[in-house]
Amino acid sequence: MSTSLRSDFTLGFLGAGQLARMSAVQAFRFGIQVAVYSDRRENEPVQFMTPQTGNGSFSDIDAMVSFAKRCDLITLENEFIDSNVLQKVQELSHTPIYPAPESFALIENKLIEKQTFENAGIPVTPYALVDSETSLQEFGDKYGWPYLLKSSKGGYDGYGNEKVNTPVEALKAFQQLGGKAGHDILAEAFVDFSHELAVQVARNKTGTAAYPCCETIQQNHICIAVKTPAPISTAMQKKAEELAVAATEAIDGKGIFAFEFFLTHDGKLLLNESAPRPHNSGHYSIEGCITSQFENHVRAVLDLPLGDTSLRKPAAVMINLLGTDQRPSQIDQAWHALQKSDGHLHLYGKLQSKPGRKMGHYTLLGNDADKLYSEAKSLTKDIRI
Amino acid sequence: MSTSLRSDFTLGFLGAGQLARMSAVQAFRFGIQVAVYSDRRENEPVQFMTPQTGNGSFSDIDAMVSFAKRCDLITLENEFIDSNVLQKVQELSHTPIYPAPESFALIENKLIEKQTFENAGIPVTPYALVDSETSLQEFGDKYGWPYLLKSSKGGYDGYGNEKVNTPVEALKAFQQLGGKAGHDILAEAFVDFSHELAVQVARNKTGTAAYPCCETIQQNHICIAVKTPAPISTAMQKKAEELAVAATEAIDGKGIFAFEFFLTHDGKLLLNESAPRPHNSGHYSIEGCITSQFENHVRAVLDLPLGDTSLRKPAAVMINLLGTDQRPSQIDQAWHALQKSDGHLHLYGKLQSKPGRKMGHYTLLGNDADKLYSEAKSLTKDIRI
Repeated sequence: MSTSLRSDFTLGFLGAGQLARMSAVQAFRFGIQVAVYSDRRENEPVQFMTPQTGNGSFSDIDAMVSFAKRCDLITLENEFIDSNVLQKVQELSHTPIYPAPESFALIENKLIEKQTFENAGIPVTPYALVDSETSLQEFGDKYGWPYLLKSSKGGYDGYGNEKVNTPVEALKAFQQLGGKAGHDILAEAFVDFSHELAVQVARNKTGTAAYPCCETIQQNHICIAVKTPAPISTAMQKKAEELAVAATEAIDGKGIFAFEFFLTHDGKLLLNESAPRPHNSGHYSIEGCITSQFENHVRAVLDLPLGDTSLRKPAAVMINLLGTDQRPSQIDQAWHALQKSDGHLHLYGKLQSKPGRKMGHYTLLGNDADKLYSEAKSLTKDIRI
Repeated sequence: MSTSLRSDFTLGFLGAGQLARMSAVQAFRFGIQVAVYSDRRENEPVQFMTPQTGNGSFSDIDAMVSFAKRCDLITLENEFIDSNVLQKVQELSHTPIYPAPESFALIENKLIEKQTFENAGIPVTPYALVDSETSLQEFGDKYGWPYLLKSSKGGYDGYGNEKVNTPVEALKAFQQLGGKAGHDILAEAFVDFSHELAVQVARNKTGTAAYPCCETIQQNHICIAVKTPAPISTAMQKKAEELAVAATEAIDGKGIFAFEFFLTHDGKLLLNESAPRPHNSGHYSIEGCITSQFENHVRAVLDLPLGDTSLRKPAAVMINLLGTDQRPSQIDQAWHALQKSDGHLHLYGKLQSKPGRKMGHYTLLGNDADKLYSEAKSLTKDIRI
């Protein structure tokens, strides 16, 4: 078997945020070129990293086809494009897209996603499509209050999600999320979990590689930290990794994928969400694993053999550096974080900071995830960004 | 103490080869922007990594000033610019340059370099400036035949060096190297060494950090491989590291520097060459050390605290992937190298390959440098590039 990497090969990213940025670096390390298509006018992180850019909305097929024609392969960094748009872009440009539009179609909205994984025998949170006051009431009566209402398409970091405690709240949220305007709205049972877990999986024709199961820690629906390995039994970690691999196979995925699970108090694993791209939960792998999720993203879509996903040290903790100030982006008070041995600072090059925006992250490697978490919090607590 | 990294900060590189490429990636990881000035018209590795480029010769002060004005800080990736040109560019652009022109002036030609280090008490190879048939003869009579003749400025990878066995050969080489045309030509005693060693040192106002002493293996004057740690006593490794730190201090260096030493059969360390930039001997540090030479390059010039230079595993070996074919650049038969756990392939994105050109490198981490070297050679032996 042989492989070929050419210096005139261009990998195009649909999306220009930090995920594309960190994958682009791995494309560079393999000597290939990077192009980026963005739906925003302002300069985004990856646009400073390549002279090859495209601009337009994620529904502008002509603009994306023209971009794709300049690329040898297209990959995704978000899930805000319709799979039928991707399909059209692929057909008209003759440039392959991975993850494939067919794979993405199986997870692109929350309803289909749940059906896909349920059909593959993977446990998911109880759910139903709701379309009326009656169905909102019935779901609560059946699965208990509170429960969650979600836009079937387009939510992230808690946007497009509402927790509802009463039928009145349910109706209000249903309207706010666009249910009356015809948007598909999904009701999901509220899961009283002990841990939120995540597993990244790389897959292509050469094989499948799962990352160690990690715990994600959320605040206000945004991931603030990740601990690897997750503080659960090895058997349960293994089970989450196996479910993540099964989920990747269920969509015949080629690329890197992330799966988020709830671990319930009674020891059940429920698949919550999936993403056809590198994921915030896997940023620790840049230094924490022998091969990062970003390197395996590039390897996977290029059909190169996948790299070893083992941890370099017994534990890794990642802290998201969320914007603290509304100002042109700069970081202050990072001295302690930079000084620490095996503490690794990453900034995303966004020009504007605002409170809560993901501006960078900090990874600390060592022996014990809980101790590392305290230490990493302390090392980053004074950072202004 | 506080530090500040801004997303609108631009680090400019004078030179656009693989060293700038690998440093640029580390600038990106800290969220800053990259600009590159190249003296070549064809597309070079870093020009695919930024929309901010400048073009002109390394003696074109106007072009470099105009480039420097668009940058917040300038750094070097080679030593082919005169220090007085750097000084002028810095003065006229008001953009600081690190390593500083004053530091570079102390090593920019081989004669001054030897004097600088000799004055600092660092042992160097016996040498003399030669300018006549008589002095060529005298040097050989005093230090023995054969000896080396070197252009005082501008040599690398053996270019500009000649080994001479007789007075007739000496005169011929002297002429070929431009001695008659007024170029400074240095004679150097031929050192019968047991090992060629190298140490990289990062230094700025926050401190100094030396990398583990490594052994460089040359073939036809080109480095083909690096073993870390060098297969010599720990005391001798330490001594080389101390000499490298002393040499960096002797030039008040700010940035990353590399020092090459001969270890003689009778156990003497002689400083052979220095470079005010990342060095091929330190490529292994990307995965081999907690902080790579490229990350410490960026940290050093930005006056950030320097990162830990410790090895991640007991040993690291790097193999240079030299061009095997004259053709548009692509790599074939890299499958085994890519499959190997903790084997790390890096390609430089050069568009054209030619026999002997440095196209990429391969690093393998493990427990024993000699075993790793055999293994890495075997994993890369079929690679066509």
